[in-house]
Amino acid sequence: MLPQWIIEKKRGGEALSDEELQFFVGGYARGEILDYQMAALAMAIYFKGMTPEETAAMTRVMMQSGEVIDTSSIPFPKVDKHSTGGIGDKISIPLAPLVAACGVAVPMISGRGLGITGGTLDKLESIPGYRTGLSVPEFISVLKACGCSMIGQTDRIVPADRKLYALRDVTATVPSIPLIVSSIMSKKLAEGIDGLVLDVKCGRGAFMKTQADAKALAEALVQVGRAMGKKVTALITRMDQPLGRSVGNALEMIESVEILRGRGPEDAVELTLRLGAEMLVLAGVVPTPEAARPLLLRKLESGEALDVFIKMVRLHGGKTDVIEDPRRFPVAVIRYDFNAPLAGIVLDVDAEKIGRASLILGAGRTQTTDVIDSAAGLSGLMKVGERVEAGQPLATLHAASRARVDGAIPLVREAFVVGEGPAPVPPLVFDRM
Amino acid sequence: MLPQWIIEKKRGGEALSDEELQFFVGGYARGEILDYQMAALAMAIYFKGMTPEETAAMTRVMMQSGEVIDTSSIPFPKVDKHSTGGIGDKISIPLAPLVAACGVAVPMISGRGLGITGGTLDKLESIPGYRTGLSVPEFISVLKACGCSMIGQTDRIVPADRKLYALRDVTATVPSIPLIVSSIMSKKLAEGIDGLVLDVKCGRGAFMKTQADAKALAEALVQVGRAMGKKVTALITRMDQPLGRSVGNALEMIESVEILRGRGPEDAVELTLRLGAEMLVLAGVVPTPEAARPLLLRKLESGEALDVFIKMVRLHGGKTDVIEDPRRFPVAVIRYDFNAPLAGIVLDVDAEKIGRASLILGAGRTQTTDVIDSAAGLSGLMKVGERVEAGQPLATLHAASRARVDGAIPLVREAFVVGEGPAPVPPLVFDRM
Repeated sequence: MLPQWIIEKKRGGEALSDEELQFFVGGYARGEILDYQMAALAMAIYFKGMTPEETAAMTRVMMQSGEVIDTSSIPFPKVDKHSTGGIGDKISIPLAPLVAACGVAVPMISGRGLGITGGTLDKLESIPGYRTGLSVPEFISVLKACGCSMIGQTDRIVPADRKLYALRDVTATVPSIPLIVSSIMSKKLAEGIDGLVLDVKCGRGAFMKTQADAKALAEALVQVGRAMGKKVTALITRMDQPLGRSVGNALEMIESVEILRGRGPEDAVELTLRLGAEMLVLAGVVPTPEAARPLLLRKLESGEALDVFIKMVRLHGGKTDVIEDPRRFPVAVIRYDFNAPLAGIVLDVDAEKIGRASLILGAGRTQTTDVIDSAAGLSGLMKVGERVEAGQPLATLHAASRARVDGAIPLVREAFVVGEGPAPVPPLVFDRM
Repeated sequence: MLPQWIIEKKRGGEALSDEELQFFVGGYARGEILDYQMAALAMAIYFKGMTPEETAAMTRVMMQSGEVIDTSSIPFPKVDKHSTGGIGDKISIPLAPLVAACGVAVPMISGRGLGITGGTLDKLESIPGYRTGLSVPEFISVLKACGCSMIGQTDRIVPADRKLYALRDVTATVPSIPLIVSSIMSKKLAEGIDGLVLDVKCGRGAFMKTQADAKALAEALVQVGRAMGKKVTALITRMDQPLGRSVGNALEMIESVEILRGRGPEDAVELTLRLGAEMLVLAGVVPTPEAARPLLLRKLESGEALDVFIKMVRLHGGKTDVIEDPRRFPVAVIRYDFNAPLAGIVLDVDAEKIGRASLILGAGRTQTTDVIDSAAGLSGLMKVGERVEAGQPLATLHAASRARVDGAIPLVREAFVVGEGPAPVPPLVFDRM
């Protein structure tokens, strides 16, 4: 078997066998197949796709390139959530402790943001002292102590994905469904979970712009998860305007704590409840998503979910005073209110433009070496359908310098459409599978 | 400009600009763009193709990655021929001295064979002492002394192609017309020629199996050559049965000398004359191919073409006694007559199978490190339309061992179809452009 024969087979549109994927992708992880051959195969996969069986086999080979976490010592069902990413998406942070408070273990391994806003890890690191780099035994021990733990990738989990993702990034082979699916699912399944809820974002502020594309990705993710013997549910959710009212790392942490206190923005709370309900169903805690709702609301109202979060932060070495008093989070030097020029209804808020504005303000990174400004971002974002008066803020911009604010203002101006007339808000959840 | 943006542009089917190709392919030649990015671009080119302008720009960038030979000191028109390769194709060897004998300089840089039979260099090296590795000044000096010189690639000519070709070979990106065209044309135009005649082979024994594919390749080659200001003519010629009656290195040298003596196999002589006529037209020696024919025949009959060849071999350090007495060429230990089982007309000879038989006999290489057996191959091949009696040889097999002969016999048996009925021979030249 020569690597080029396998590339040629995929180039011709044929499905690769388990053995061929093991030879090629496993060999790539071990350094026996070289980057240029993997790059050629990735481009052939971009053009010719993969069958569900191939994608599952690829996922398995990638997962087996490293350690699969043994969670068998944790005496609870293990369920996680993965989002394909959107502007203002901080849901993981309130969701994990909320679900853990209901008796489900949530072993969550997250990524850093690249492109627009920070990722979950960047948001958590706005808590002084919070360590995202736990060892696997530390991770297991936090899970046992409080039911959830949120860490970053370790070197030993799916090394094939780290290598392949870096290669895809520089060879224009990122937007390929089988490659996206095997990347996501190999990492999630290496967490040692029983079930996974997928939040596939759809719209202007998401990777998938159309419902058809989002549905194709969701179906591919669900198929692979089920082929690997896991319980998987996917929600396709809207990502046209930002989620919640804040975009930025500390700003989203503050909002996450608000959600845990039962008083966050309506859309962010609602999505937390919807995803949490699916997780409880997969864990076998409740029979239906409807039955989960009162349980979840009770855990928010009683403060139990917040207590789990505080405990988790403490176990990760984080200072919890910021959670008790959010004014202690890092604060930006410049705060600028972007005001509505005239009165009217907010007809549109373009999530993608708000995301780019947050990047300019310092909340994201364009290169892996960029340093994130925890305090930067936007808060108090008005939502579609809300009425504003002339001179009332549509958003507050936070940055370390006036120059950054000036750079972001044109994007914020373009993002908001204020006028008269009905502003229909599409449903938060488009589809479920 | 980032390399991945250029890959993405091609992946989306857009044409790359001259600057983008200079940045990417020129950068690749200089080692600034890495193999994995070139591999991804090559696969994107495989799927999305290139416009004639892009292919010309790519050819120019590749040509300029190294030395372009300065032939201005040679006081003759400079014209070369390139064949896309077929079984028994030794035409370059008699053609170069024949055309040189008509007052045209033929600076021919050839390749080695890989896949089936040896290349022109391998055939020349069956002449004891013949040096294919001349320096450029030596090459120019031989051209001045006798009008033609046949050498191998130097390290300084089109280094980008050497690098890219090796990469394409291991990334399943060989069969792409723009990549084939830029590889061929960059090397040929670096010879410092005024004109080029292309022999695009078509049929079972060629890379291009159908006339449509061969025509597409020929058109692409001609377009690029003309875009770069050269006179270019292409003939599409048949490659269903082997060319001539011999396949193998010394065996084809012997046949080449026969052609130069005016008594080679009819098809090989005819193709030599047709290609020579086109070269003389491009050189401005004659106005039409028809006018070239008597001149070429005279140079064969007078022995002038053979004299040029002998002179060239001597200038390359080769022993010329083998040319005067072909029995002095290396001889195989085993010679085996493959006889016709019954009388009839040769209805078919499959060039591809004969080529594979010659490889088994030792005449070719499957890896660049394989050593070729000069004496191995097939001779006395019967041609389509000829009558054979039962027990009369259809071919003679030459090899270093009986095991090799035994390995080749089944292929030779499959290659020949002998029976009754008309055996129409398609025209030697299908098309001209």
